[in-house]
Amino acid sequence: MSAGRILATYRIAASESESRVRAESLAAEQSVEMPLAAIADKRILSDIVASVESIRPHAGEFEVVLGIAPATTGNEASQLMNMLFGNCSLQPEVELVDVAFPPGYEKAFPGPRFGIDGIRVAAGVESGPLTCTALKPQGSSPAELATLARTFALAGIDVIKDDHGIANQAFCPFAERVPAVQRAIADANRETGGRTIYAPTLSGGGRSLSEQARVAKDSAVKMALIAPMLVGIPAFVEIQVDLDIPVMAHPAFAGAGRIAPALLLGKLFRLFGADATIFPNHGGRFSFSRATCMAIAEAARAPWEHVRAALPVPAGGMTVERVDEMIQGYGPDTMLLIGGGLLSAKDKLVDRAREFVAKVRGRIG
Amino acid sequence: MSAGRILATYRIAASESESRVRAESLAAEQSVEMPLAAIADKRILSDIVASVESIRPHAGEFEVVLGIAPATTGNEASQLMNMLFGNCSLQPEVELVDVAFPPGYEKAFPGPRFGIDGIRVAAGVESGPLTCTALKPQGSSPAELATLARTFALAGIDVIKDDHGIANQAFCPFAERVPAVQRAIADANRETGGRTIYAPTLSGGGRSLSEQARVAKDSAVKMALIAPMLVGIPAFVEIQVDLDIPVMAHPAFAGAGRIAPALLLGKLFRLFGADATIFPNHGGRFSFSRATCMAIAEAARAPWEHVRAALPVPAGGMTVERVDEMIQGYGPDTMLLIGGGLLSAKDKLVDRAREFVAKVRGRIG
Repeated sequence: MSAGRILATYRIAASESESRVRAESLAAEQSVEMPLAAIADKRILSDIVASVESIRPHAGEFEVVLGIAPATTGNEASQLMNMLFGNCSLQPEVELVDVAFPPGYEKAFPGPRFGIDGIRVAAGVESGPLTCTALKPQGSSPAELATLARTFALAGIDVIKDDHGIANQAFCPFAERVPAVQRAIADANRETGGRTIYAPTLSGGGRSLSEQARVAKDSAVKMALIAPMLVGIPAFVEIQVDLDIPVMAHPAFAGAGRIAPALLLGKLFRLFGADATIFPNHGGRFSFSRATCMAIAEAARAPWEHVRAALPVPAGGMTVERVDEMIQGYGPDTMLLIGGGLLSAKDKLVDRAREFVAKVRGRIG
Repeated sequence: MSAGRILATYRIAASESESRVRAESLAAEQSVEMPLAAIADKRILSDIVASVESIRPHAGEFEVVLGIAPATTGNEASQLMNMLFGNCSLQPEVELVDVAFPPGYEKAFPGPRFGIDGIRVAAGVESGPLTCTALKPQGSSPAELATLARTFALAGIDVIKDDHGIANQAFCPFAERVPAVQRAIADANRETGGRTIYAPTLSGGGRSLSEQARVAKDSAVKMALIAPMLVGIPAFVEIQVDLDIPVMAHPAFAGAGRIAPALLLGKLFRLFGADATIFPNHGGRFSFSRATCMAIAEAARAPWEHVRAALPVPAGGMTVERVDEMIQGYGPDTMLLIGGGLLSAKDKLVDRAREFVAKVRGRIG
């Protein structure tokens, strides 16, 4: 293996006989993007062109490990994604399955500023799994969402997030919704002695994100929800400096890729600063397998130099009935997110939410 | 059809017997993301929840047209993509194949500020196809790229862009490269009386983009190259205000999606402001079919309210030998991009570049 390279593993749907040629053309595509024969400079050939580190058969196709020169990524998020999967994203036979970074490279990125421990401190939950729900549906007014948030906070939910579809629409502007919901939750916390946290959805370009971060800060909001693939990964990285509160990543628009979910939603979102990462749990409305979900949780929490662990948040059509099984599968450093499954209780909403909290807390020691 | 809705067509890989249930669950997923039975507010059911406009069989699968309420998109790019393909991007059986916007909706977005006509004015090419090439390989110094740019400008190439992999790396910082290359091209233009344009790659988050836009402006650069999916679509929209020069979109990281290329690289990039759009031509290093490529060009140029036409830029392993066939296929409102195919000529580079220009110009009149 070439020392100091970023090792990117690709699965290529092509016959093994082509594997050497295909691997070498991928190495050129993901670095200099031109025929190597036309490059005279030996330094570029040795230091810049990606290397083919290994080729091995895999289930009738093959896997190639490329060694990508860290210098080509400029230590910047959009350029890192470009070198990993820019042009080859346009080649449907290529999938990006894993990336291993050389020690020290991770320092170029923020990583989670708070991580699992920081979220526990903010939510006042020292151990065991956490609970999360979502304010829905979009189309509701700030006052309606604030009332709903109050109900969830009284029930003792740890984190109440906006639905990812609630952005900055005219029917519920960010600047009106966020102070109203935060106030309702703070009032409920005062009544119960609880520590429920609100995580509003931030959206738009860098300017919108900055403005929304300012509103969130002024309202004493303690967590933020952002979909990195919708706002753009570099914007996700940049806004964290302004926010200075834990950030929960939402997977919207992220599954469009042929990038292994554990790599994108687990390892890469964590590298780019996600303190918590939402992903569609197996057996719900999405088709991720149990193995994929476990791999995401593992990538979010695995020891990695000085990079803090991110909190896995399985979601997507979950119900109170599945709490025990989910905790058994994911363990205590997990936040369970149930949205529609609580709202379906309609006028029994507060009871269903309390049942959710009790069931999760009941698992503790 | 519901009046005033955004009509989004999805292809769903599932049996027709499930089509009604599947279509209705997609309509909920892409709007309120909760069971409709739990929504009491009639206004939300009628004005916010996406409607199922039609279902029809398609090649053993089926196509669903959803009517998405424009209000849910907040007239903002990241939220529009969220409503079109946020959560369902995580469902591998769902593809987004087309979107039709209600008249007037397009005014929420900039569209191309210059379009084909504006690029023609900037490059001084009144009619016929344009020529484009790329500065490569990354790892070259600003001085080396400036020398290469001079050669291309002397040969009369219309647009010289950075390779999309040339970003803001330590070995070739944007702030050093861009003034050096622009100066070399301006000098060559003075010698030849030509109008060659330089399009440097802008990358990173909103702050990097703003800083790079400032450098580009100070250097009198006349075009910019940006990969919307790498920097994030809302950042792509925002930076155009600062730039105020034609913008060429690069498809890096865009093919990862299950969004029809003609929709994403053609119609949507155009809506979001691309004056020109690069895409992998058929028969090169990428597997887009001829029909897909023609559909991209059509989507970029088709009449659309007051939205300016964007210039199609087929690329990706093209050679001078294919010029005639490409012009025949794409017509005169096209820019042909040949990068590695010119650089392979090595010490005969200027002759190969001149041949490229002559061959394209020869088609005129």
